[in-house]
Amino acid sequence: MAEPDTVTVPASAEADTEPTSPFLRACGGLPTDRTPVWLLRQAGRYQPEYRALREKYSMLEVIRTPELAAQVTLMPIEAFGFDAAIVFSDILPPLVGMGLDLDFVKGDGPRIGNPISSTLDVDLLGTPPAEETMAGTLGAIALVRRELEPRDIPVIGFAGAPFTLASYAIEGGTSKDFSRTKAFMLSEPAAWKRLLGKLVTVQADYLLAQAKAGAQALQVFDSWAGRALGREDYLRYVAPYNRELFARVSSAGVPVINFALGVGSYLGEAAACGGDVVGLDWALPLDEAWERVGFERPVQGNLDPVALLAPWRELEFRIDDVLSRAGGRPGHIFNVGHGLVPQTPVDNVRRLVDHVRERTAS
Amino acid sequence: MAEPDTVTVPASAEADTEPTSPFLRACGGLPTDRTPVWLLRQAGRYQPEYRALREKYSMLEVIRTPELAAQVTLMPIEAFGFDAAIVFSDILPPLVGMGLDLDFVKGDGPRIGNPISSTLDVDLLGTPPAEETMAGTLGAIALVRRELEPRDIPVIGFAGAPFTLASYAIEGGTSKDFSRTKAFMLSEPAAWKRLLGKLVTVQADYLLAQAKAGAQALQVFDSWAGRALGREDYLRYVAPYNRELFARVSSAGVPVINFALGVGSYLGEAAACGGDVVGLDWALPLDEAWERVGFERPVQGNLDPVALLAPWRELEFRIDDVLSRAGGRPGHIFNVGHGLVPQTPVDNVRRLVDHVRERTAS
Repeated sequence: MAEPDTVTVPASAEADTEPTSPFLRACGGLPTDRTPVWLLRQAGRYQPEYRALREKYSMLEVIRTPELAAQVTLMPIEAFGFDAAIVFSDILPPLVGMGLDLDFVKGDGPRIGNPISSTLDVDLLGTPPAEETMAGTLGAIALVRRELEPRDIPVIGFAGAPFTLASYAIEGGTSKDFSRTKAFMLSEPAAWKRLLGKLVTVQADYLLAQAKAGAQALQVFDSWAGRALGREDYLRYVAPYNRELFARVSSAGVPVINFALGVGSYLGEAAACGGDVVGLDWALPLDEAWERVGFERPVQGNLDPVALLAPWRELEFRIDDVLSRAGGRPGHIFNVGHGLVPQTPVDNVRRLVDHVRERTAS
Repeated sequence: MAEPDTVTVPASAEADTEPTSPFLRACGGLPTDRTPVWLLRQAGRYQPEYRALREKYSMLEVIRTPELAAQVTLMPIEAFGFDAAIVFSDILPPLVGMGLDLDFVKGDGPRIGNPISSTLDVDLLGTPPAEETMAGTLGAIALVRRELEPRDIPVIGFAGAPFTLASYAIEGGTSKDFSRTKAFMLSEPAAWKRLLGKLVTVQADYLLAQAKAGAQALQVFDSWAGRALGREDYLRYVAPYNRELFARVSSAGVPVINFALGVGSYLGEAAACGGDVVGLDWALPLDEAWERVGFERPVQGNLDPVALLAPWRELEFRIDDVLSRAGGRPGHIFNVGHGLVPQTPVDNVRRLVDHVRERTAS
């Protein structure tokens, strides 16, 4: 699929009219008749139908085949009635188009066969357009949009932030201490600048292409900068690129969610990089985290996903705590503060969605 | 070695007299003629003499043999002249005495063969005295003390905090999301209380035994609570046990360092659990972190250990930044904010120690 299907309503056209779906209304800080809810990794291994499909296809096959990715994206919508669908993909495939060999090794996570280890490696990275390299995901977005448009359920596109992608590109996978990434950053500041610059180019283009393909909101995941770096390094080596990314993507005409995980004491600085909505992890109670980013900005979060492994009474207590801290203010999207874990009981996901809906219906 | 050797000066006797070593003076908030310096994991894989010894003995053999553990403890003292020696050990061996099977798997880290998976498992855990179960480390402390006493270089004992040990005991090793630990904590609150209570008993006894064996300071490592838990869960499921541990250990008559890694936005709450000195990770600049815990308390930190992989000019800039943020205030112990990584160049460690000494000599 070289060209994504066109969609019924181009994303740019609807930016001027007030949205009707609770999710998009909350993204705009508008009142809703109930709190919208979706969950990070709402499509995934905890679902039997997902596991069944993954027995037949590899992770990359699913991601690269629009029909399969769309099917997985829709699974949790059909099962639980979430208020938004996030296209099934991963943050790493855009690295493939840049020249890196990516594979997902069972039980071991992502692996890059030819990680960056020199400044020359950085210069050899390409920056091809997303339409050429990410056609599978763009096609899946178009398919999901067509399916969900009649039900007024928006589809969310996403991408990884530059530091997070750089860390995978340099470490070759996940990392305990990010020592290779940070050593490269400190030892080769000029090459670091070129690397993050290329990632901004590729990711901004990819996010804009997702909006063009039909995504009605975009989320940027910075999964590792907060874990890897102190605040001063974050401000010096990461924030300028995040700011540039959010600035470029603002032309998409759809709300952009800035989700920086584990930034802890510098949540305010991470949020200040941009985005319309701030995704919150579970480090702080929702009201305090919201205050730090400013009540004028909508927020998304922030239940600890492991709470879904607890007995219902405990889970219910925690859902209610998030909702009561949100205080019925407009601009709250209920979500977890990190992805659902594979052991999550399906039944708790169902009860969570129903409970948020019942508790917040006006 | 069932009984640790007696030491020249019992730890309890010297609590009443003002110490002379820069490290112990800084622990007491007293002025020093230069900033004392030691580094987390200053004995370890980055040293060729350590790697050579580890080719002959396993990790547990080194830890359990007083002469070997003492030898490794002294390696960085001889090589670089640090101002304190931390006994070579690991936070996990006390779990063996409680009934857990521990092994260190090459490249894969610690593994517990029979992790806790039920409330019965918790009830079966023993709490034998450290003199019986940790004789190797206690013996090593006595040997190191005897060796370093004439040079007025103090020896530090240490132990893991209850949550961190519980996470290994339940996960069976390191963890990405601590989902088993947290699920157990939320699902079995009564058993969690018993588990953490047993860990407090064992760890307090172990720390007191280390002081009795000759340790002149004690450090408590809470490596994972900050990564695993939001602030409210920390306050509810962790802080009471840390407070109890610090309260019991205060009777040792030696300074206690409270090092809670990755607590980010709740550094103040973690520090408030106790300890005379607060260990700081590298998330915040030293002066801001110090302000959060209160300038009246001595602090230890907080260079990012990966900075030792950078070229000397960059490393020097960062060392100077930490020192200038400390501002010459009494009560600063120079250290890294997390353990040295194995790729650390020996030469950078040497230059760091010399530089801190030269820069701060009055």
